[in-house]
Amino acid sequence: MKAVVCTPGQKDSVRVIDMERPRCGPGEVLVRVHSIGVDGTDEEINEGLYGEAPEGCDFLVIGHEAVGIVEESGAGVRCTRPGDVVVATVRRPCPERCLNCRNHQPDFCLTGDYLERGIKGLHGFMAEYYTESMDYVIQLPRELLDTGSLLEPLSVVEKGIRESLRVQQRMLWEPRRALVLGAGPLGLLATFILRDMGLDVYTLATRERTSPKARVAEVSGARYIDVGEEPLDTLPEKHGPFDIIVEATGYSPYAFRAMELVNRNGVVCLAGLSPKKKDHALCTDCINMSMVLDNKAALGTVSASRRDFEKGVDRMLSIRNKWPGLLESLFTKKESLDSAPRALRRTKEDIKAVVVAT
Amino acid sequence: MKAVVCTPGQKDSVRVIDMERPRCGPGEVLVRVHSIGVDGTDEEINEGLYGEAPEGCDFLVIGHEAVGIVEESGAGVRCTRPGDVVVATVRRPCPERCLNCRNHQPDFCLTGDYLERGIKGLHGFMAEYYTESMDYVIQLPRELLDTGSLLEPLSVVEKGIRESLRVQQRMLWEPRRALVLGAGPLGLLATFILRDMGLDVYTLATRERTSPKARVAEVSGARYIDVGEEPLDTLPEKHGPFDIIVEATGYSPYAFRAMELVNRNGVVCLAGLSPKKKDHALCTDCINMSMVLDNKAALGTVSASRRDFEKGVDRMLSIRNKWPGLLESLFTKKESLDSAPRALRRTKEDIKAVVVAT
Repeated sequence: MKAVVCTPGQKDSVRVIDMERPRCGPGEVLVRVHSIGVDGTDEEINEGLYGEAPEGCDFLVIGHEAVGIVEESGAGVRCTRPGDVVVATVRRPCPERCLNCRNHQPDFCLTGDYLERGIKGLHGFMAEYYTESMDYVIQLPRELLDTGSLLEPLSVVEKGIRESLRVQQRMLWEPRRALVLGAGPLGLLATFILRDMGLDVYTLATRERTSPKARVAEVSGARYIDVGEEPLDTLPEKHGPFDIIVEATGYSPYAFRAMELVNRNGVVCLAGLSPKKKDHALCTDCINMSMVLDNKAALGTVSASRRDFEKGVDRMLSIRNKWPGLLESLFTKKESLDSAPRALRRTKEDIKAVVVAT
Repeated sequence: MKAVVCTPGQKDSVRVIDMERPRCGPGEVLVRVHSIGVDGTDEEINEGLYGEAPEGCDFLVIGHEAVGIVEESGAGVRCTRPGDVVVATVRRPCPERCLNCRNHQPDFCLTGDYLERGIKGLHGFMAEYYTESMDYVIQLPRELLDTGSLLEPLSVVEKGIRESLRVQQRMLWEPRRALVLGAGPLGLLATFILRDMGLDVYTLATRERTSPKARVAEVSGARYIDVGEEPLDTLPEKHGPFDIIVEATGYSPYAFRAMELVNRNGVVCLAGLSPKKKDHALCTDCINMSMVLDNKAALGTVSASRRDFEKGVDRMLSIRNKWPGLLESLFTKKESLDSAPRALRRTKEDIKAVVVAT
C-alpha cells in the first residue's frame, strides 16, 4: 500500500513509499483511510524538528488526524463492524502505565514516555490502511465522513474548553463574550465551539477582513477582528470584557497579555505552541498583579482523551446542523496520497490542508 | 474608644484617634477586638498607595485581620452569643449585587465595586470594638482566640489551594511534592496547609537557613531552601518534580518561571502581588510552550469567601494539633493599639506583626 513517511530529524524528508499493508490482530480493526488532515506538528516533523520512528524502524508514517472506514474486524471485536466510519485517538499509554495512562487518559501522562501515532514512536495514519486496537477507535455517524479528519483538532479544543469550564466552577460564572486569538484551524474550531455554546465570539487574526479566514469565522456568527485595524489591547474597552480567551496563535506575548486582558475572574485557555523560544519584553509585574487581584486562571492544553473525541462527535453534528458546509470550508487545500508532500507547504491564506486517500 | 486610622492617599498618616464606639443594630453583633494582624495591604495603605475612606468620612479605620469576642447581640441574632470568639470576613457585596455577590461569594465579585472592611469604603477592625452583621461573622473555638487573627490570611491560601485542587480534577492527580515561594505569612501558612495535607513541602526564600523564617518552616516538617544557596531553577533536578507551586513572593519572574518549573500537568497558585509594575526579561515562548505541551494550569487568588474561612478554622485546629505553638511563632512583633503605627514598619526578619487590643 502507499504510505507517506519521513526520516525523523531530516529536513524535507517526507515522501511516498510502498509498504506492506498491516494485518489485523485480535481486538483490532483494519481501517481503510478516507482522509487525513495536516497540522503544525506534521510541518515541524517535515522540518526535522520533531518526530520519532517506531523502535527498529528508520522511518515514520506521518499523519495523526485521520478518518476512515472499517474494512475488517479482528477476533473479539464487538462494538465496531466493517463499514463503520471511525477516527483513532493519537496518544498511547506509557510503558510504565502511570496513573493517568492506565486510566485511559494518556493525554495527561505523568511520565512523558507516552507514544503518539504519526508523531512519537508509532506509525501514523497517512497511508491507505492502518490497524488499531478497538480501545482507541471512535465511531462516527456516516454523515461525518467528509469532515471526520477534523475530529482530532476539535477534540483538543473541546478538552481545553472543558477544563476551562471546570476551573470556573470555583464560582458562579455565566460567560457571555469570548475572544479567540488566531484563525488557523484551532482558532476557527474554538470559534465554532464557543459560538455553538451561545457566546458572543470575537476572533482576532492578522488576515484582512475580506480573507477566507475572516469569512469562515463570520459564517458562524463570530465577529472577525483584523489585528492591523484593531490592536489586541484596545478590544476590551471597545467591545466589552471577555470572560474567556482562547489563545491559538502560539505568539507568547498574546498568551500573557491575554491573562491581563481577560475579564476579572476570567479564564485563558492556551492552545498555541511557541516553538521559537524567544524572549519578549512584557510587564510581567502587571500580568501577575492582574492574575492575582482578579482571580484569573490560565491553562495549557495538549492532546485529548477518548471522552473529548466523543464530545467532539456531538459538537461536529451540532455545528453541521447550525451552519451546513462550514466545517467543509476549512479545507482550503486538497491533495492525494501521491501529492501529499505538497500538503505540508501551507501559505498564509490556507486554513487546513487535507490528504484524501481514497 | 481607641481606633487606628489613616487618611487615604496620604503617606504615613496612620495614627490613633478616639472615636465613638459603634452601636449594634438588628442582626448585628458588637465585637470587642482581641488582636489584629498587619499585612502588606495595611503597609501599602500607610504608604498612601491604597485605601478608600467610607463615604462622607475623611479617614479610614484600618485593619482587616481581626479576632474578637462578641460583647452584645442585636435583635434577631441567633447563631452567635456574647462570649463567642469570632472573626469577620473582609469583602462585602457590590451595590449592583452581581451574580457572585448576591450568592455570598463577593471574593469573586464581577463588577469590581465590592467594598472591603479596613481597605475599601468601610471601616476596619483595628479598634477596641466593631459591629458586624451576623452574616459576615465566623465563629471559632475558644482555643483559637490567640491565633484567630491568622484566619483571614489562612482563608486566602485555603481558597487558592481549593481552586488548585478543583482544576486538577480534570485528571487523576496524586500530588506528592509542593514548592512554596516565599516565607512571609502567606508562604508559611501555605507551607503549613500543604504539610497538613501530607505533601513533601519545600519552602524557598531569601533568608538564611538559620533565620526564624527557616526554623518556623522546618518545624512543620518542610524543607527550607535559601535561594542564595540553591537557585530556583535548580530545584526540580535536585529534589524531584513539584506537582504544585504556591507563589507568595510577588516577584513576577518567579510567578512565570514557576509555570515552567512545575511538573507536567501541574498547577501554580499565584498569591503574591507585584505592585511595582516592572518589566522583567523572560523567555515567554518557553513558558507558553511548557504550559501548553504539559497541560499546566495557573491561577491567581485574592480574598476569600465564608466557606474558606470555615475551612480555615478546621485547618487551624489541625495545624495546632500537629505542631503546637507553630501558629503562635509567626507573631514576631506585638504592639498595643497605642503603638499600632509601629506594627506597620516590618523588618526583613519579621514574619507577622500583630496589634493586641485588649
